[in-house]
Amino acid sequence: MAAVAAAMRWRLLQVISVAVLGASGTPQPPNILLLLMDDMGWGDLGVYGEPSRETPNLDRMAAEGMLFPNFYTANPLCSPSRAALLTGRLPIRNGFYTTNGQARNAYTPQEVVGGIPDTELLLPELLKGAGYVSKIVGKWHLGHRPRFHPLKHGFDEWFGSPNCHFGPYDNRARPNIPVYRDWEMVGRFYEEFPIGQGQMVCSSPQEALDFIKRQQAAQHPFFLYWAIDATHAPVYASKPFLGTSQRGRYGDAVREIDDSVGKILNLLQDLRIVENTFVFFTSDNGAALISAPKEGGSNGPFLCGKQTTFEGGMREPAIAWWPGRIPAGQVSHQLGSIMDLFTTSLSLAGLEPPSDRVIDGLDLLPAMLQGQLMERPIFYYRGNTLMAVTLGQYKAHFWTWTNSWEEFRQGIDFCPGQNVSGVTTHTQEEHTKLPLIFHLGRDPGERYPLSFASTEYLNVVDRITPVVQQHQEALVPGQPQLNVCNQAVMNWAPPGCEKLGKCLTPPESVPEKCSWPH
Amino acid sequence: MAAVAAAMRWRLLQVISVAVLGASGTPQPPNILLLLMDDMGWGDLGVYGEPSRETPNLDRMAAEGMLFPNFYTANPLCSPSRAALLTGRLPIRNGFYTTNGQARNAYTPQEVVGGIPDTELLLPELLKGAGYVSKIVGKWHLGHRPRFHPLKHGFDEWFGSPNCHFGPYDNRARPNIPVYRDWEMVGRFYEEFPIGQGQMVCSSPQEALDFIKRQQAAQHPFFLYWAIDATHAPVYASKPFLGTSQRGRYGDAVREIDDSVGKILNLLQDLRIVENTFVFFTSDNGAALISAPKEGGSNGPFLCGKQTTFEGGMREPAIAWWPGRIPAGQVSHQLGSIMDLFTTSLSLAGLEPPSDRVIDGLDLLPAMLQGQLMERPIFYYRGNTLMAVTLGQYKAHFWTWTNSWEEFRQGIDFCPGQNVSGVTTHTQEEHTKLPLIFHLGRDPGERYPLSFASTEYLNVVDRITPVVQQHQEALVPGQPQLNVCNQAVMNWAPPGCEKLGKCLTPPESVPEKCSWPH
Repeated sequence: MAAVAAAMRWRLLQVISVAVLGASGTPQPPNILLLLMDDMGWGDLGVYGEPSRETPNLDRMAAEGMLFPNFYTANPLCSPSRAALLTGRLPIRNGFYTTNGQARNAYTPQEVVGGIPDTELLLPELLKGAGYVSKIVGKWHLGHRPRFHPLKHGFDEWFGSPNCHFGPYDNRARPNIPVYRDWEMVGRFYEEFPIGQGQMVCSSPQEALDFIKRQQAAQHPFFLYWAIDATHAPVYASKPFLGTSQRGRYGDAVREIDDSVGKILNLLQDLRIVENTFVFFTSDNGAALISAPKEGGSNGPFLCGKQTTFEGGMREPAIAWWPGRIPAGQVSHQLGSIMDLFTTSLSLAGLEPPSDRVIDGLDLLPAMLQGQLMERPIFYYRGNTLMAVTLGQYKAHFWTWTNSWEEFRQGIDFCPGQNVSGVTTHTQEEHTKLPLIFHLGRDPGERYPLSFASTEYLNVVDRITPVVQQHQEALVPGQPQLNVCNQAVMNWAPPGCEKLGKCLTPPESVPEKCSWPH
Repeated sequence: MAAVAAAMRWRLLQVISVAVLGASGTPQPPNILLLLMDDMGWGDLGVYGEPSRETPNLDRMAAEGMLFPNFYTANPLCSPSRAALLTGRLPIRNGFYTTNGQARNAYTPQEVVGGIPDTELLLPELLKGAGYVSKIVGKWHLGHRPRFHPLKHGFDEWFGSPNCHFGPYDNRARPNIPVYRDWEMVGRFYEEFPIGQGQMVCSSPQEALDFIKRQQAAQHPFFLYWAIDATHAPVYASKPFLGTSQRGRYGDAVREIDDSVGKILNLLQDLRIVENTFVFFTSDNGAALISAPKEGGSNGPFLCGKQTTFEGGMREPAIAWWPGRIPAGQVSHQLGSIMDLFTTSLSLAGLEPPSDRVIDGLDLLPAMLQGQLMERPIFYYRGNTLMAVTLGQYKAHFWTWTNSWEEFRQGIDFCPGQNVSGVTTHTQEEHTKLPLIFHLGRDPGERYPLSFASTEYLNVVDRITPVVQQHQEALVPGQPQLNVCNQAVMNWAPPGCEKLGKCLTPPESVPEKCSWPH
């Protein structure tokens, strides 16, 4: 029934479009490709002003598509932002947060017990209702225990890893990360999949290209989620790209990704399916300045980076590409969110988002196809804490924090070279009564809070306050998934390890509170 | 004779180009338009990543032309950088500096006695040798006393002001700035030319458009130097642009400039002279962060701004446009300098630069027409002090200073929100023995000096040291022009004041050392 309703809705959408016929002769909804980068910053692409201008394919994608300069992730860290993308819901709702401390960033290292709850509906699960075949190539990061396996959450195929090549590990204290093909592991990093031979092991572009070809041949609408990890430290690039960038190793990785994106777009053109394939490029969080300059990217003019709720931590490069449908060379100032990719993808498939839960994502098709601007808030959470909200051009900080003095004094700095007095604080500063407000148009770098006494400030408070109240009053936080850690849940014996003789013996189960320092 | 030789040289250049016939039927060298912004930063254009993306005409200019992400001014302040542009020589050579203190920025406020020396050869003077008619529209800033008048230094026409609308003044302690048409003043700001009615009084785009039309009709090759002041505080925009930018008043001014640039490029197209007109857009120094956020621009990812020799103070937006000659949509990583516009313009005119003096500007035509990359140093001076040098990707700082602690504690901050330990210093720190070295590709924000012990550092020192030694050993500083101030030299009675009944009586002449605090 869902599939029929979806086909009906899709047929309505086709009124403004060229119908593409599937194998059955019925109109086929567009293929969907989400290209998700890891720790790539807003300022890392030529089209976003990166001075070395080494991303000709992504710049071309923007020239042929629509650029979103005001596009945000849902969290300044990888696991929660990925969970938000695939559920269309804030991490505070879908459980990808911790209550072990206030405003703590949490993710899914091997010892985390939690992962994506079965109660969450993921994009590929829903797209099945419209006949899509879905594949994830690359980094999953929504939990590594068998119950969290992507094929249990709607994907039909997987090549990649729960975490990609975090390490290095030595397979005694911590098992090396497994690489999966579909249900079973096919090896481990540092063992069958040596690190240093090239970035693309975990998120092989060839896997992406092959999937596209197969689905096109089979006349299936497809969803490809290419979650490439190459720009996350430790940064790797394949030999042909090593030493080719003006930006060092990080730039080599960006160049290889750019090259792969070019190959994907070219394949779509060669297969003549560009008009029936929606492609969106973005990143999971801001550049990891803690890894700069050798293994971290650029957040352009924005403040701080990954781990923070300043613009550098959460504003992302974003390009939509759908030649013939999305007008070429456009810039949309729509405030966009990574969660919108969930709702927009459903809309493309002719599906309604689930009605039994709050969905935070908007359908961006009116912005993309008709140039509409929709007012909506962007919420900046850090763990269980609403740190800030942006509405229109104004951003209000209710809490400010980079990291603790203790960490900072150890050299852990999320804002290297940047220091805005009273803003980049090393104690958790509460501003809920009197938020710090910035005009992001005049002051994208969040350096000049509006005067509390100004009419502008008072007007903004009047506009933002009810939006925040409404959000907080209606909020039902999900069960936090990232509170409990246990050495026994690590990747000791993933499915498939028996065939390879690669099963390790887990230690005794000792559940404990995870420690999230920032 | 010079004109004949120039015509000969130009004819040689025509081998690779379409000959354009002048009134006499002989090949005519290309028209030259230099569009010089005031305090506009590297990050202020959409094509350089400005998030609001409000410069469609300049972005189009880049798409149709060549972008230079690594283009520099010759000084982080307006007068010296303008003197360098028009002489092709560093301010330390052409006299636009002070020896009243070490590393002090100096310019030409009304009380300055000096200005452009008669011994300097300015671009319009030389272009006369190839038959060019030259006009300056806007801000001159090379001295306001009669001997420094632009028509005494090669320009045939002027509409504009020595300083544009610096103020406000009250015409008692300091005379209001005169507006000139050619030899004589036609009024003063705040009097005949009210401020607040629009930015374009001083640098009227209509004056630029009219000049182009007249010269085209007369079949003269022309040089137009459009030195627009709108983005210098106090920032103004005309009524149709007020309130139209996402960036506030500063953005309104940028939008109006962008609109005017569009009008100029469109006129060249309407007149069908694009293939015989070379246009270059750049700025005199980095954005004045001291005036941000309301009246200052953006230096994108770079450190600090105007007044400093960090990248934010001296790296400039730069676009070359010459459809049919310069390939469209190109990016050149040539290290370019504002002084290159002197030498390149002479080359376009078929003229050799003067051989009796050191010229610092390079001919950029090989970079523009053939995509060549030429190795050359960029020298960063502040007054009489060589602060830094860039060679290839490496920048070496020999001195670091933003401003004094005294000024900084008063709230004068050239690096708001930025603080790189040991780099953005408030005492003049000498590093001549052991320069601070940055790799600008990996670290454009100058946040991570190379380790002194690294092989990379030692190799860079070995490359840069002889370049600096050679430069300093050969350097013959010009007579400093910005040492002496005198209330009596202000614009009390400019030429033409009698006709208008606008002459004021100067006070007694009391020469004194100018005070340059930073």
